[in-house]
Amino acid sequence: MNSPLARTIKIALCQFNPTVGDLKGNCDRIVAEIAKAKKTGIDLIVFPELAITGYPPEDLLLKSDFIDGNLKALKKAAASCRGIAAIIGFADKKNGKLFNSAAFIKNGKVCAVQNKVCLPNYGVFDEKRYFSPGKTFSRIKLNGISFSIAVCEDLWDKKGIASMVRPGSLDLIIAINASPYYSGKWKERERTVKTLAKQKHAEVAYLNIVGGQDEIVFDGMSFVADSSGKLRTRAKQFEEDLLVFDVSEKISKKPDKNKKGTKLYLSVPVPLDRPAEIYRALCLGLRDYVKKNGFKDVVFGLSGGIDSAIVAAIAADSLGKDNVKAVFMPSKYTSAQSRRDAVKLAENLGIGLSEISIGEVFDSFLSGLDHHFSGTAPNIAEENLQARIRGTLLMALSNKFGYLVLATGNKSEVSTGYATLYGDMAGGLAVIKDVPKTLVYELADHRNKISEAIPQSIIERAPTAELKEDQKDQDSLPPYDVLDKIISEYVERDKSAAEIIRKGLPAETVKKTIKMIDASEYKRRQAAPGIKITPKSFGKDRRIPITNGYR
Amino acid sequence: MNSPLARTIKIALCQFNPTVGDLKGNCDRIVAEIAKAKKTGIDLIVFPELAITGYPPEDLLLKSDFIDGNLKALKKAAASCRGIAAIIGFADKKNGKLFNSAAFIKNGKVCAVQNKVCLPNYGVFDEKRYFSPGKTFSRIKLNGISFSIAVCEDLWDKKGIASMVRPGSLDLIIAINASPYYSGKWKERERTVKTLAKQKHAEVAYLNIVGGQDEIVFDGMSFVADSSGKLRTRAKQFEEDLLVFDVSEKISKKPDKNKKGTKLYLSVPVPLDRPAEIYRALCLGLRDYVKKNGFKDVVFGLSGGIDSAIVAAIAADSLGKDNVKAVFMPSKYTSAQSRRDAVKLAENLGIGLSEISIGEVFDSFLSGLDHHFSGTAPNIAEENLQARIRGTLLMALSNKFGYLVLATGNKSEVSTGYATLYGDMAGGLAVIKDVPKTLVYELADHRNKISEAIPQSIIERAPTAELKEDQKDQDSLPPYDVLDKIISEYVERDKSAAEIIRKGLPAETVKKTIKMIDASEYKRRQAAPGIKITPKSFGKDRRIPITNGYR
Repeated sequence: MNSPLARTIKIALCQFNPTVGDLKGNCDRIVAEIAKAKKTGIDLIVFPELAITGYPPEDLLLKSDFIDGNLKALKKAAASCRGIAAIIGFADKKNGKLFNSAAFIKNGKVCAVQNKVCLPNYGVFDEKRYFSPGKTFSRIKLNGISFSIAVCEDLWDKKGIASMVRPGSLDLIIAINASPYYSGKWKERERTVKTLAKQKHAEVAYLNIVGGQDEIVFDGMSFVADSSGKLRTRAKQFEEDLLVFDVSEKISKKPDKNKKGTKLYLSVPVPLDRPAEIYRALCLGLRDYVKKNGFKDVVFGLSGGIDSAIVAAIAADSLGKDNVKAVFMPSKYTSAQSRRDAVKLAENLGIGLSEISIGEVFDSFLSGLDHHFSGTAPNIAEENLQARIRGTLLMALSNKFGYLVLATGNKSEVSTGYATLYGDMAGGLAVIKDVPKTLVYELADHRNKISEAIPQSIIERAPTAELKEDQKDQDSLPPYDVLDKIISEYVERDKSAAEIIRKGLPAETVKKTIKMIDASEYKRRQAAPGIKITPKSFGKDRRIPITNGYR
Repeated sequence: MNSPLARTIKIALCQFNPTVGDLKGNCDRIVAEIAKAKKTGIDLIVFPELAITGYPPEDLLLKSDFIDGNLKALKKAAASCRGIAAIIGFADKKNGKLFNSAAFIKNGKVCAVQNKVCLPNYGVFDEKRYFSPGKTFSRIKLNGISFSIAVCEDLWDKKGIASMVRPGSLDLIIAINASPYYSGKWKERERTVKTLAKQKHAEVAYLNIVGGQDEIVFDGMSFVADSSGKLRTRAKQFEEDLLVFDVSEKISKKPDKNKKGTKLYLSVPVPLDRPAEIYRALCLGLRDYVKKNGFKDVVFGLSGGIDSAIVAAIAADSLGKDNVKAVFMPSKYTSAQSRRDAVKLAENLGIGLSEISIGEVFDSFLSGLDHHFSGTAPNIAEENLQARIRGTLLMALSNKFGYLVLATGNKSEVSTGYATLYGDMAGGLAVIKDVPKTLVYELADHRNKISEAIPQSIIERAPTAELKEDQKDQDSLPPYDVLDKIISEYVERDKSAAEIIRKGLPAETVKKTIKMIDASEYKRRQAAPGIKITPKSFGKDRRIPITNGYR
């Protein structure tokens, strides 16, 4: 039990959604949140990693005017901190070196700066490109409460705070983060933090950014673990939130086994299940990409297939149905069922649907190419031509009306190159680029539980690109359940063909699939960014040379 | 003067062109070179940084089967070293850590491994993503000659070999490199190495890779500096070469001032002048991209303008005229002069030229879009449509006949977004993506000195995209000499608007240009790779977020 003499502070974790590069906007927001918190009696308000610059600022950090602007913004935010303390993530510059830092602010001034000790340089992270590492963790005191600040990777790396803080020496560890989302990652975070809390006999407050930034989504889900490793409270998923909690001075240095009974344990929001979580991540990623880039409306091709159907649902749910323009672009290979399904889907979602036939344009292309193509058998050239006509039509609508084009390809297609560069790959954002086909179906089932959006016939039909007579995806690709397993092993886990075959997957299919994946690297290099939802997405997360003799 | 008793070894620097990932091919080549060198009495043959894997192998290094394959290849190469010693760059694995290493091989076995101490993680480099750093530099002896090995950045970083080797303690420093080309970089290399040689009273042998790898070209230009800092010999530019030289044991530890008179100074090839050097870099980059990716022929749109003209010349010079297919794709805005110029250029170069008019396809697109476009004024949508029709035609030829499409946009266009995504930006390689417009003209003048390739009228006409009536580039863009200066400051040097204006450039133009550059990041993210020839190119070299509120 805490002594009645133990002092207590009230802390707020501000799980907010900054915009990368918008120093003024982020600073104004921070100042406003500080003012609000002060009114409600908060002693210390905490903002996430690089809250001033947004995360990741990438090569903006190489611009000295950007760094200076970020320092000025921090100073402005600090000056507003009277009668309340704050911790704010920013980029610090000292002796020509740059640090990923947290400022501890009291009485309108920066009193301490904690530099990130462990700089991640794997996956989507390039922090060693910009920052120098901090050396140690300082101990800070506020109203008798002693705490240290960890910046994101400092929690995870075994050379980080786990090895540098003596058990029982702190009341609290405050971790400020910009931790990119992938499916189920919050469980790893909570596990790691709970273990740390227990080991160090300290409470741990974990604050994450929320929002979308290009390929990355931050899911929020900030939380507090007590010194016995129990979850005290947790913030919202995929939304801004302010998580308020009390921390008391520790009188005894030993673990306090009876703590539970005396503390306020807030009601903890129940996390979403897997498909719901991923669906929400995609909605947030799309919404923020659209809004932060100054768009209002999106446009895409609605084919009557499952991929464009789920993209339509995500767009309608995240942007509002009035901002979603779907275009049905039939050819002579388009079935009547596809039209019926596209129309029904648009009705269900309440989104606009227009139609542009591509037959005439296709014929005029073939007539222009006749001199070159005569005497050749129809092949991929004619198929891709149709996809590129559709891409060009969507881009024309984008250029005319300022719509953002959405690409609708899934991870299974993007992996194998079963998509047309400048055709169905065209667009500003590839919403389901990191979603394997089998998961697309799970998302459709999930969405239909909320309301009947995606016609059952779309879900039940065999997938087809409808670029030639009687075409089915499975003519060119392995069954999707097998394919997605191979992609998961090869792309996400860097396993070799031999290793994948040893796991029981069919040898010929594995070899053929890997060949397709390797051969389509040039397409992915020119693909639109997509929203990361798996441990390894395409883009910054996976950097494979195009020119590559490894087979 | 060297003592007559001083022992001497004969060293060969093998400036070769590996293919990234082709472990077998690279190893076979190394084994063959070792066998040849042995026959000519070489004591030590040296191969460049990561010669086994090619450079940069990027995320192939995350695949454990790739690392194992590279270790096996090294073992195989080592086993062939009987009666000759060798140094070979490879990726070493020790205790779960990966190193960028050089193996010193004698009697068929690896006798010493030197790990790279300084890992570059800036510009195009991501070495800290993969490698752990070495700690120190070993001293190796061969026939009485003592030397250390530096791996690339170890030469440049002040914490590298410069701070770790005692002056006079070595006869020789052998530096193995994969040093990406940019214009004039060889001068920096030679300056740095000569200074080091002088400081350490040691000869320095600098070996570089040669060849193209995606966006990077390696220019070779290996060389040897004597211990007084004088250049002894230099290898070819942009070609494979074997640089052979003798090194003698140092009897005195003091600098040997009279050395010059007793040594063999080989004739040193004179470096190319600036435009010739850049032109050769582009030729090598294009040739290797085409060959290493298994292509034979290239195709591109020949507009009658200067950009496609220089690309045509580079393609013809590097691939042979028979492998170059140019397509003239006129619209109603295309002038008679453009046609005459395109025809004359194709004649001059001896390349194939075909013609496909885009008018009919354009009209069929407009008719398909009529329902959407009616009542709107023609704008960028109609202009881009024409560019995308051309891109689609080229891609159709590519898909039908297996040609690689070349994009012909220059750095001034790519910077400002004065190019159409999926239109003139379409292609597998953007040959002059890193060449500003003013330099395009210099390259044209250079090329015409070799033979009259590019008609003077192309050089003299005001640049135009011919996408609407009487269009000139300068209607939308600042004069190219001003524009290119702004691009150089903002893109290549990360200067702010204020700094650029202080340098005397017109304020309004600077602001407008920066706005254009910032606003077209999404286009560059989907651009084809281009050949780096400046200190900072687009692509891996410059990583700017798309969603970016910094203005």
